[in-house]
Parts: sequence; structure tokens; C-alpha cells
Amino acid sequence: MKKYAIIVAGGTGKRMGESLPKQFLKLGGTPILIHTLQAFYTADPEIEIILTLPQEEIQFWDELNIWHQNYIEHQVVAGGETRFHSVKNALQFVESGLVAVHDGVRPFVSAATIKQSYEQAKEKKAVVTAVLMKDSVRQIDEKGGSKNIDRSSLRMIQTPQTFDAKLLKAAYNTEFKSFFTDDASVVESYGHSVTLIEGQYQNIKITTPEDLLIAEALLEAK
Amino acid sequence: MKKYAIIVAGGTGKRMGESLPKQFLKLGGTPILIHTLQAFYTADPEIEIILTLPQEEIQFWDELNIWHQNYIEHQVVAGGETRFHSVKNALQFVESGLVAVHDGVRPFVSAATIKQSYEQAKEKKAVVTAVLMKDSVRQIDEKGGSKNIDRSSLRMIQTPQTFDAKLLKAAYNTEFKSFFTDDASVVESYGHSVTLIEGQYQNIKITTPEDLLIAEALLEAK
Repeated sequence: MKKYAIIVAGGTGKRMGESLPKQFLKLGGTPILIHTLQAFYTADPEIEIILTLPQEEIQFWDELNIWHQNYIEHQVVAGGETRFHSVKNALQFVESGLVAVHDGVRPFVSAATIKQSYEQAKEKKAVVTAVLMKDSVRQIDEKGGSKNIDRSSLRMIQTPQTFDAKLLKAAYNTEFKSFFTDDASVVESYGHSVTLIEGQYQNIKITTPEDLLIAEALLEAK
Repeated sequence: MKKYAIIVAGGTGKRMGESLPKQFLKLGGTPILIHTLQAFYTADPEIEIILTLPQEEIQFWDELNIWHQNYIEHQVVAGGETRFHSVKNALQFVESGLVAVHDGVRPFVSAATIKQSYEQAKEKKAVVTAVLMKDSVRQIDEKGGSKNIDRSSLRMIQTPQTFDAKLLKAAYNTEFKSFFTDDASVVESYGHSVTLIEGQYQNIKITTPEDLLIAEALLEAK
């Protein structure tokens, strides 16, 4: 069964060249995004990788690959206005089989998690990696109040989110809605339930300078 | 106005002496719990610190303090069966004023957060530090299904949780209930609403070996 991975990297450079988009920041000397591609390549070199990047970052990415001698084969697709639009663009290049959607800034996804995601998606059609909440959680209301929520019923959702390719393409054949925060919400809105499988805490999303510090520590420990 | 801090450290040594309780693990060469006491002492040396520890760990803690030349004044109180029981024990030594309850394994709480917590508690009586959720969140049901929750309405709850001392003592004058996951839930059950104030992501709770790695990275960056 054919396996695709859509790697979503939406970060653009800040004004005045102040900083690099997050996906290009160096982790152990290598851009985060190259670590992420390596994770999928290591899990299974047969996976067809489709990378979405903002149009204006594509040329820099090509040069980065040459500089870092990254030879992992992948197709680059220009991203859209939101994550939803980027995935939708990438899905044009997906036919049938299985497709994992993964955040470019989650380089620590394990080979075991990737393999298990495709394996489970064969049967369940829509599987999403998730971890338990460690902290207490409260829900706020419009009046500024808040109430305690039983955290044992909550899961923090990660990527990969892995699907039957035809199901995901059909689900994305719609207009953007503001509650589409991830692929699971798109598929669910289409009417198909999603199955949660166990993710790993170390599969962090690198979005702040603090996260990058944490990432360096995790990399060193590997 | 008198200020108390109840620092809750509930970890006990694993069987066979395999590992130290988490609060005693070294962070930059110093036990985590000493870092935590230092955070409160640095914020305001006038804060009266009450530390709850499992009975069987108290002697070791005393020796650790001598070894690490920790002279921060504090009172040690034997903890109880759960966090609720430990805080309840400690509250016997609190009179009137303000009381912050804080996890012993959150050494990175900033002086600014501690000061702001007491400041806000003067007026609001019950204030809890919280941060926004970074990940998508799903809620699972009994049938094994799950649904997307709007993460913008959710907050991850941290400590310190800071209260008018009389309010907290009154709220704790009850029997343990299983939904008492933190002090806010006890006060809320007593009928008083809690106010959320902004915490910081770096104020992590160290509960796994992975967290300790992250903590070392954060310490180095300080």
C-alpha cells in the first residue's frame, strides 16, 4: 500500500530579516526540517514525502538542502493561507493509499510512532497521535470565569495524523472553517470518526526559543 | 500582610533504593527542592515557608540541607496520603494573611510570578497561574470516541495557587474528594470562584527523566 507523508512547514521569515522561519532553525547544527524528513526516511525510505513551504521560502530551502547535503527525496509544494490550505494543496499530489500529515517543527517523532500510525490507519482510516495531560485544566467562559475539567478525559493532540488517502482527500474537498485546527477536525467534520493512538511527550512542537532549548537537550540525550 | 508559602513535595524513594524522590534529584548540582525554596526566598525573604514531605524523607532532607549548605529558613511538616492531605496538614501552621501553594518540583517559578500572585490574591482572594494550550485537545468519552475541544477556551493550570489564608483554611476544612486535583478545585467546591493569572511556560513540573533533561537546558539558559 502506497504511503505518503505531507510535512507542513508554514513559518515565514520575520520582517527585517530578524530571524529565520522556525523550520529552518538549527538543531545540533542541522535545520529542524531536515531532522523531520530524516525521521520519516528512517521509518521507511519508501514513504513519498510532500513538503509544503511558503512560496517565498522555497528557494532558500533548496539552497539549505545543498548546503547540508540533504539527499532525502521529496516534492515541494507551495503552501496556502492557513495550514488547511497548505494540506489541501499538497493533497493534489496524493492518490490512493495512506497519508500521514505531520508538523515540520516536530523533529522528534519516533520511527515506531510513524510505523504504527500507518499500520493503524490501514484498518481505522483515521488515526491521530495523542498524549495524556500532565497539568490540571480549566475551561474559561465569556464572563471571565472558569471551571475545572477532568483532565483524565482530555488528550493533547500531536502529529502524525494518518488517514486513508481517499478519505482525507474527500474530507478536504470543502471550504475552510475556523474550527479546522488540525486534520482530525476536518475529517470529523466530514463525518468520519478518528481513532487516538499513543504519542510520545518527546514529540514536541518547536514554536518558541524556549522550545528550541528543550529540543537541543532532547537531541543531546538521544 | 503576612505571606506564607506551602511547598508540596510528595515523592518517596522507589523500592530497592533504585532512585531518589524527584524533589531531591540534582539540577545543576543542587536538589530541585532547594532551587524551589530559593525562588520563594528570592522573591521575598519575609515569606514564611512551610514544606510538606513524606515522613520517611524528612531526615534525608535535613541531611541534604546541611550537605548543600541551604540556610533558607523553613518549617517541615509531614505530608499525608494525597496532595490534599498534605496541604491540609500544612494549613494548621497558617494563620491569617496570604498563602501560596506551590509544587516542590516546579523550581523555575519566577520572582515576578510569585510577587504578582500575592499581589492579586490580596484583592481576588483566590488566584491561580495558568498558560494557554499549545496543542489541539480532544475529549474522550466512555465509548472510546473523542471530540475536538476549542483549545482557546482551555488553560493549563500551574502553581503557585495563592489564596486568602482564611478562605483556604475554610475550604480545606472538608473531607477529600476525588476531583480535588489542586487547591483551586478545593476552593471552588467550597463556593468561591478562582481568578486565573498568567503563568510562564518555563515553570515546568519535573515528573519524568525527560523533564529533568529539559530542566537542565532551562537552567543553563538562565
